[in-house]
Amino acid sequence: MPRFDVEEFRRERARMNEAILGEKHLGIARFWALDSRAYEPGALDAKTKELLGLVASTVLRCNDCIAYHLDQCHTVGASKEELLDALNVALVVGGSITIPHLRVAWDVVGQLYDGKKPGELPAHGHSH
Amino acid sequence: MPRFDVEEFRRERARMNEAILGEKHLGIARFWALDSRAYEPGALDAKTKELLGLVASTVLRCNDCIAYHLDQCHTVGASKEELLDALNVALVVGGSITIPHLRVAWDVVGQLYDGKKPGELPAHGHSH
Amino acid sequence: MPRFDVEEFRRERARMNEAILGEKHLGIARFWALDSRAYEPGALDAKTKELLGLVASTVLRCNDCIAYHLDQCHTVGASKEELLDALNVALVVGGSITIPHLRVAWDVVGQLYDGKKPGELPAHGHSH
Amino acid sequence: MPRFDVEEFRRERARMNEAILGEKHLGIARFWALDSRAYEPGALDAKTKELLGLVASTVLRCNDCIAYHLDQCHTVGASKEELLDALNVALVVGGSITIPHLRVAWDVVGQLYDGKKPGELPAHGHSH
Amino acid sequence: MPRFDVEEFRRERARMNEAILGEKHLGIARFWALDSRAYEPGALDAKTKELLGLVASTVLRCNDCIAYHLDQCHTVGASKEELLDALNVALVVGGSITIPHLRVAWDVVGQLYDGKKPGELPAHGHSH
Amino acid sequence: MPRFDVEEFRRERARMNEAILGEKHLGIARFWALDSRAYEPGALDAKTKELLGLVASTVLRCNDCIAYHLDQCHTVGASKEELLDALNVALVVGGSITIPHLRVAWDVVGQLYDGKKPGELPAHGHSH
Repeated sequence: MPRFDVEEFRRERARMNEAILGEKHLGIARFWALDSRAYEPGALDAKTKELLGLVASTVLRCNDCIAYHLDQCHTVGASKEELLDALNVALVVGGSITIPHLRVAWDVVGQLYDGKKPGELPAHGHSH
Repeated sequence: MPRFDVEEFRRERARMNEAILGEKHLGIARFWALDSRAYEPGALDAKTKELLGLVASTVLRCNDCIAYHLDQCHTVGASKEELLDALNVALVVGGSITIPHLRVAWDVVGQLYDGKKPGELPAHGHSH
Repeated sequence: MPRFDVEEFRRERARMNEAILGEKHLGIARFWALDSRAYEPGALDAKTKELLGLVASTVLRCNDCIAYHLDQCHTVGASKEELLDALNVALVVGGSITIPHLRVAWDVVGQLYDGKKPGELPAHGHSH
Repeated sequence: MPRFDVEEFRRERARMNEAILGEKHLGIARFWALDSRAYEPGALDAKTKELLGLVASTVLRCNDCIAYHLDQCHTVGASKEELLDALNVALVVGGSITIPHLRVAWDVVGQLYDGKKPGELPAHGHSH
Repeated sequence: MPRFDVEEFRRERARMNEAILGEKHLGIARFWALDSRAYEPGALDAKTKELLGLVASTVLRCNDCIAYHLDQCHTVGASKEELLDALNVALVVGGSITIPHLRVAWDVVGQLYDGKKPGELPAHGHSH
Repeated sequence: MPRFDVEEFRRERARMNEAILGEKHLGIARFWALDSRAYEPGALDAKTKELLGLVASTVLRCNDCIAYHLDQCHTVGASKEELLDALNVALVVGGSITIPHLRVAWDVVGQLYDGKKPGELPAHGHSH
């Protein structure tokens, strides 16, 4: 359970994407392209699509995918209240097994939205 | 791979909900209530929340849950184009293993949106 | 969403087990044996182990496995109240995506514990 | 647990593919194409790729996907012994939760390889 | 594959719970409460319920959830022999894909039951 | 998202296997044996079986299992092109949720096949 550092995640993701995409396997390259296009605005706008990606990533329990979609949600202007509502749907559908991922998600939100450092204590004055 | 009949699904769902909720187990009753409330409008509106439920159900591959959320999506006014965009996100995130569920989903959409009967041939004049 | 008939399940399970075990693949045969032995009394008694099998089957969402372990739970003397407590743990851990399986589970319990027929209406005098 | 009928599966799969692909959603159409191409011979031959698809479908526990890849395995010349070895890997990796899917798989193999009818009793002279 | 340190896990879990619960989202807070109550003694005692939580967490393959329920199992008096029997059910149901989680589980048990430090070599005088 | 170090993985895996197998639980010991035997040559050769194990591990999204089967694939002589074809099948079946695991897989391949150090930059002269 190491702390999730958004900056390190972005760097490692770029380095490792380069490693596999550098092999130029046609099927894999096409999948990456299809993946990007699925979140472009269409009948649904970009924010809704990123929230869909976030919930899908949370119920399937992938921290890297959650961090990626939170980063995108932040970029396209989702509010923290909207993220909480979306994560609540994921929690109810996916159950308590998603809770460790909600914890990571909210640590990432602190870094993206509030300029916190990884592992920084929350500002709330009470404990649970 | 029996055909998915929306009317039969609604009836059986009601009958079986009654069977288990009739036992009056407090924890189970509270979960059912929490589940309903997660889709009520809040920071996100009802349509967005139902689309989140649809995508979560599709990547977790549960036909009954997909049918339930499609029924709700229809009620709160999601268009077929919006459903296709949401299902496409689910397909890309969840992979080809979700395809049999997309097939069921679109059969259900035909019954909900176009008044088709279960198992009725699609109106498109070409084959795949 | 066809009704789950316990008698038919037992018959089909026996027929299909015979089909695959009849091939006498050593690895597959040994796995079947290991599976049976895992539920024999040891440090934990048979009832606890069957409840573990029931909860594992529910969070992994396999109706046939749920029905099998409910049949065993009934044989080794688990009460309906114990089954509800176990299914509640599964519901909380696994989330609302397990609800369709809880519905099937309780239909099966009605057949095993109360002599109901598949699809018979529950005796409770109220609806949900 | 209705019997799995290979002929009916092929018909329903074609009908329902037509329903969703007839909507001409670009992302969905491209995914279908990418899916087909992944199994064309390349560095690995078609039989190996279909066995990979079979094992992936079995550990992810999708009967329709299992039936589809068994149909393809039969077409490209995999033997029953090779299928048993592949299913054994899936069983060990995925555990007893895959057993109901192995039962369906072997019923489908009986229809594809031995000309059996759905639900026909196996020819082995002993029971399990 | 960093070593799992029970003390660090408890600290980080408390810190991150505070971060998300501090947002006071009603649905999320209620889920946390429902989760706690599911393990309180009822028709089943606390030890059986914690073992159910352990097995559910293992077949769903969540190290944090496994560590949490092992910590609880230790508190309510489950023996190492009982834990091994429960983990064996999880292994058979969930397959070899759970093995890395069994390894983490037993490392955690060493810290909880035998006062070992994270990463300390086991006391057995032979290798595997 | 710490870097995956193949050497450290092998050491920790051996240490932790010893911890749990040292308990001499019969069911667990037998499962370990069954697991090893599933990959021995039979109707399918060792390379095909390791590729099956790799794809199963990737769609089930277990980094340790992926690293183990890549190590075995390397030992039995699978080429990088064959690994890419197998991982592409896993990607299409399992969807974008497998992408973080493909990134780890290719980092591991760099260590096994090209003598790279964990975290070393890929040699390709362009970025993604």
